[in-house]
Amino acid sequence: MSPRLTGAELARVLFRPRSIAVVGASDNPVKLGGRPVDYLKRFGFRGRIIPVNPHRATVQGLPAFPSLDAVDGEIDLAMLMVDARGAAEAVRATGRRGIRAAIVGAAGFAETGPEGARLQAELLAAARETGVRVLGPNCLGLIGVADGVVPTFTSALDEDGGLRTGPVAFATQSGAFGTFIFSAAQRAGIGFSQFVNSGNESDLTTAELLDLLVGLAETKVLLAYLEGVSDGPTLLAAARKAHAADKPIVAVKVGRSAAGARAAASHTASLAGEDTVFDSVARQFGIVRVPGTEPMLDAAQIFATGRRARGRRLTTLSLSGGAGALMADEAEANGLTVGVWEEEWQRRMAAVIPAYGSSRNPVDLTASLISDTALLNRSLEVAVQHPGTDMIAVLLGNASRNGHELVAAIEKAYRATDIPIAVVWTGGDGRAPARLQELGIPCYPDPGRAAAALARLADHSLRPALPAPVRPEDCDPAAARAVVDAVRAAGRTRLDEAESARLFRAYRLPVAPSVPCGDAEEAVAAAAGLGGPVAVKVLSAAIGHKSDLGGVRLGLTDPGEVRAAATELLGLAGEYGRPRVLVQRMAEGRRTELILGAKRDPAFGPVVVAGLGGVLVEVLADSRAAVAPLDHPGAVRLLRSLRAAAVLDGVRGGPALDVDAAADAVVRLSWLASDLGEELAELDVNPLLLGPSGEGAVAVDGLVVLSGNRKSGGQA
Amino acid sequence: MSPRLTGAELARVLFRPRSIAVVGASDNPVKLGGRPVDYLKRFGFRGRIIPVNPHRATVQGLPAFPSLDAVDGEIDLAMLMVDARGAAEAVRATGRRGIRAAIVGAAGFAETGPEGARLQAELLAAARETGVRVLGPNCLGLIGVADGVVPTFTSALDEDGGLRTGPVAFATQSGAFGTFIFSAAQRAGIGFSQFVNSGNESDLTTAELLDLLVGLAETKVLLAYLEGVSDGPTLLAAARKAHAADKPIVAVKVGRSAAGARAAASHTASLAGEDTVFDSVARQFGIVRVPGTEPMLDAAQIFATGRRARGRRLTTLSLSGGAGALMADEAEANGLTVGVWEEEWQRRMAAVIPAYGSSRNPVDLTASLISDTALLNRSLEVAVQHPGTDMIAVLLGNASRNGHELVAAIEKAYRATDIPIAVVWTGGDGRAPARLQELGIPCYPDPGRAAAALARLADHSLRPALPAPVRPEDCDPAAARAVVDAVRAAGRTRLDEAESARLFRAYRLPVAPSVPCGDAEEAVAAAAGLGGPVAVKVLSAAIGHKSDLGGVRLGLTDPGEVRAAATELLGLAGEYGRPRVLVQRMAEGRRTELILGAKRDPAFGPVVVAGLGGVLVEVLADSRAAVAPLDHPGAVRLLRSLRAAAVLDGVRGGPALDVDAAADAVVRLSWLASDLGEELAELDVNPLLLGPSGEGAVAVDGLVVLSGNRKSGGQA
Repeated sequence: MSPRLTGAELARVLFRPRSIAVVGASDNPVKLGGRPVDYLKRFGFRGRIIPVNPHRATVQGLPAFPSLDAVDGEIDLAMLMVDARGAAEAVRATGRRGIRAAIVGAAGFAETGPEGARLQAELLAAARETGVRVLGPNCLGLIGVADGVVPTFTSALDEDGGLRTGPVAFATQSGAFGTFIFSAAQRAGIGFSQFVNSGNESDLTTAELLDLLVGLAETKVLLAYLEGVSDGPTLLAAARKAHAADKPIVAVKVGRSAAGARAAASHTASLAGEDTVFDSVARQFGIVRVPGTEPMLDAAQIFATGRRARGRRLTTLSLSGGAGALMADEAEANGLTVGVWEEEWQRRMAAVIPAYGSSRNPVDLTASLISDTALLNRSLEVAVQHPGTDMIAVLLGNASRNGHELVAAIEKAYRATDIPIAVVWTGGDGRAPARLQELGIPCYPDPGRAAAALARLADHSLRPALPAPVRPEDCDPAAARAVVDAVRAAGRTRLDEAESARLFRAYRLPVAPSVPCGDAEEAVAAAAGLGGPVAVKVLSAAIGHKSDLGGVRLGLTDPGEVRAAATELLGLAGEYGRPRVLVQRMAEGRRTELILGAKRDPAFGPVVVAGLGGVLVEVLADSRAAVAPLDHPGAVRLLRSLRAAAVLDGVRGGPALDVDAAADAVVRLSWLASDLGEELAELDVNPLLLGPSGEGAVAVDGLVVLSGNRKSGGQA
Repeated sequence: MSPRLTGAELARVLFRPRSIAVVGASDNPVKLGGRPVDYLKRFGFRGRIIPVNPHRATVQGLPAFPSLDAVDGEIDLAMLMVDARGAAEAVRATGRRGIRAAIVGAAGFAETGPEGARLQAELLAAARETGVRVLGPNCLGLIGVADGVVPTFTSALDEDGGLRTGPVAFATQSGAFGTFIFSAAQRAGIGFSQFVNSGNESDLTTAELLDLLVGLAETKVLLAYLEGVSDGPTLLAAARKAHAADKPIVAVKVGRSAAGARAAASHTASLAGEDTVFDSVARQFGIVRVPGTEPMLDAAQIFATGRRARGRRLTTLSLSGGAGALMADEAEANGLTVGVWEEEWQRRMAAVIPAYGSSRNPVDLTASLISDTALLNRSLEVAVQHPGTDMIAVLLGNASRNGHELVAAIEKAYRATDIPIAVVWTGGDGRAPARLQELGIPCYPDPGRAAAALARLADHSLRPALPAPVRPEDCDPAAARAVVDAVRAAGRTRLDEAESARLFRAYRLPVAPSVPCGDAEEAVAAAAGLGGPVAVKVLSAAIGHKSDLGGVRLGLTDPGEVRAAATELLGLAGEYGRPRVLVQRMAEGRRTELILGAKRDPAFGPVVVAGLGGVLVEVLADSRAAVAPLDHPGAVRLLRSLRAAAVLDGVRGGPALDVDAAADAVVRLSWLASDLGEELAELDVNPLLLGPSGEGAVAVDGLVVLSGNRKSGGQA
């Protein structure tokens, strides 16, 4: 086999091929095998089109070849229009001919059942064996909009109207629905650079396609329709590149609901991580997750302008006070602010609008605008100069008769600034919104949709730096390794509380001081040594829920109490193995419960989870995840993204909590999880007791379970 | 003045006038004064059009009259196209001529400042004086779509295309924005019966207009755009009628955000209640509140079909597995359920769809549908028979080439059932969705919008009965009256805790037993009499926050403790007036804090507020309001609508709480608030301690403040 293509080489043959062979090309341009040839001709592909058909000398007027081997010259890309049973052999033939990438359109693979899954495995084996990178199977191919690179048989290219070129690339796992969205976007005036359908993703995934697309100069915005993510690290790599290049990835991912996840799984037969993990990771890595198709296209429209917002302060100018009030509601519901202008700026605005308008913001230009379109220019000029205006919404409607003048006024103002401006145009005959979209000026039919798009623009514009985690120097992976090895040596995967505490201490997680004890007198001595009130707990890796078994005694101060508790709990422990108890110093002062944890996500690997403990987590299911390892700012953001984050600032008259200490614990836990890697099954710190600012955090209980995957060596 | 018109009479002259006089009619059909005449002619008004113009013998070809008095015969409605300064006199002339309703179009009233407010007061005085009911001022008039009743000067009637007739009536406070929405709705294929713009609402409010519109036979759905509600009771009366007639009211109300409320207030200068109260009341009275214009029109489309859902179970049929999965997500996010079909029904579905489709629900019909449209009929036939299908979503896209056949297939299936069906059609040339909408079949471009509309349909279809509260027989308004009178007699408006407790006990609210005491020995005796641990609290109407002053001692059992606490707190009380303490029995057992309250809303009168106490209310601002009085089911719904309602079912292994007891307390409090009426300023029960199911609730502290409005007599 040939050496694996680099990303740049792969992008070149997929998106800039100089020659495309269509294997199974039909002379009939309506048949599936005929369409790619027809489309490549019709949409102006300037490279060489090579029909391969053993039965014909010409195909649709082009010279045909009996086989790939019979073709002279270089071939960049093969479009394999053969059935599922012939696909693996076709890939091998592609590889033998020295072609490095192929598209497999046929269905009938893993999506249909076990026999199809076998064929797909065979196809993948052929790809790996030959080094040919495969798009598909069960995919429609791809569309390079600007230069007619259309190795695809999608009927979407039969829809009326030419293709609209622009800066938006779209990678979609779903074929049919992907083309519907593509078509809807084109009708909404959104210009595309690329459309790629990944289908069953036997080899090339949406994540890798996004990674390639980010690198294309003509692409400024990436859209993704995902049914599942199997290769989290590739997606994160793409997200890092996109973040650095300021090319937002706007993603719809199905599977938010149980029903959606079930449908996606049965549809794509792909192994996917948990949706809540994807959601958290998207937030962490700056992927703009949107709930559905229309919000995706609404966001694409405003991102495609290339403009960015320097803040969340929106100024609205409207022809109708009612529309301005609704826009203010929708903007604030989306996290933007619509503040009253400073008096000086109100005066400046008042000077250019009618006396019965309002210059406070929302700015009411009044219906005078209909007969005096220059009013729009005068007010927009003031708004773009106003230092407290980060974004502008202009609300108009109907006005089919003078829409032309209004559009001209907006265009003039738009060109004179780089502040993001969105137009809301409700009602009318549709010509003015279409014209604005042609001019590249975002236009929405509804204030709510404009507000959501503007808010996504602000979120992206103000996105935090990506995680740049560095392992704290005082972490001791070797000490952690020793704990793990000892547990393995004992033939266990579950750690007892004392072992869990040793593991945490290896990464300098604050753990309440404790002493494992084998008899009651040891416990009394340990309590005296620890000082202050103690907890006595049954100590056994075999007991999962100590409290449920009555295995915990809290707040003991008297030696007699400690002795009695230890004696009783040693008896309990004895029923499960060696009789032992843990004597632990009680945390002091008023503290709030947090729950920290770590687990392995099938797509993204080690993730940490943080939530508030007590009644809040139970009532609100209030926890968030992040890919490990995390840096400190990322850990703070994770905690602050909790729905009940207000608790961190102190409630019921209490002081603000030590968020820094909690974030530090999250960082250390994330490194432990990351270093344990595949060895970790599950890890919980429950609870971490968080004190007021400056008083730190302390873990008072923890549970660690190792996976069956034993690491041969290396860190931790 | 003439006797006030009944609702039926007013509806007749406004919406079914046999003659309309246009005062200030212009011969120029483009001028504001000329438009109503032009429109009445063009849109086919079949009654008499009476231009009034002292300077012309004819107006736009019709005989004109120098004044209303000069007109022969009956006049139902006067459209007054005069300026703000002439409006009051024009209304008086209208009344003199025996005309009972007038539309005042002019702006320049309360929306412009004090001078305008004066003119508006004068206008209202003229209306009251003459009995003429006035729409406006600062309004565009109204549009009776079916019969050309168009006394309006809105330029919306200049938009291209005729008016689409249908069952939807729209009342809007905003003129310009209202017409934009009207125009957008018409383009979206929504047919209207009426459009009315209320403008400044000097006399006729949107609420009263809705009340009139509900009574019109041709109206099946009501839309409202509200900037504020000043007459809550009228709105509730309209909601009751609409509820009984199964005519949903779908309302956008601005003012959700501070910025929106500010904009609406400055725009309309109307006194409005709190937005959160409106939100709660809408829920209570079955008003479908939507956040914005597009959701309103999306809901209107599906309500206009007249179909209702018998449950929330959605079956989705799609051409693309990806679209089905997204629809499932969006449906479940909106509170619908997309459940797997029973095996028997899966088999029935599998028998009519391709083998590589999915019959589980979401049902994947596969792209075969494009070439086999009968597949749509076969699968829809199975779906409408399936007993677990309450609603159906059909997801298609593109297919401009065979859209006609697909639409025909949908139409056939649609006519064969009364189950609600919504189509999602993404992409394509727009003809198929337009055709579906013409056929009255709801069609949306995006799964999320369809899901939201279907969910609103389900909510409305399953709406609970309206409140039918009956005062519990054991409430004793006379005893409450006596408490209030005594407080008034003492020259106070604030009740002390003992007085508040007496007031609550008069309505049989459960209050912890307590005894007011004037010295320490009395307190010791009281504690002994109450039995069990007691609280001793400083008792003074002058002290608002006892705890903040250290005025509360809890859990005292020993007489010495009681004596010491009483002595100290009597000293504290003495600083504020007569030295007194309250000795109160502590509530027993584990209990959860609720906060109940009542207040007067400027729009809706007495409302009760309920929330969970403790950290939840602080972190989540989790409370809900309802108009008083409430019935028991309404009180249960109020409590269950809290965001943290899961607490009521027991958390952290605890038992379910006594929701019935809490609801009973809410009902009693709501009657107390309702009977106190305008005398009540503010009332709090904080906390109400709620025990496990069967163990009741008990109020342990309360605060009542009376308003300055003293009732002369009557109940409570």
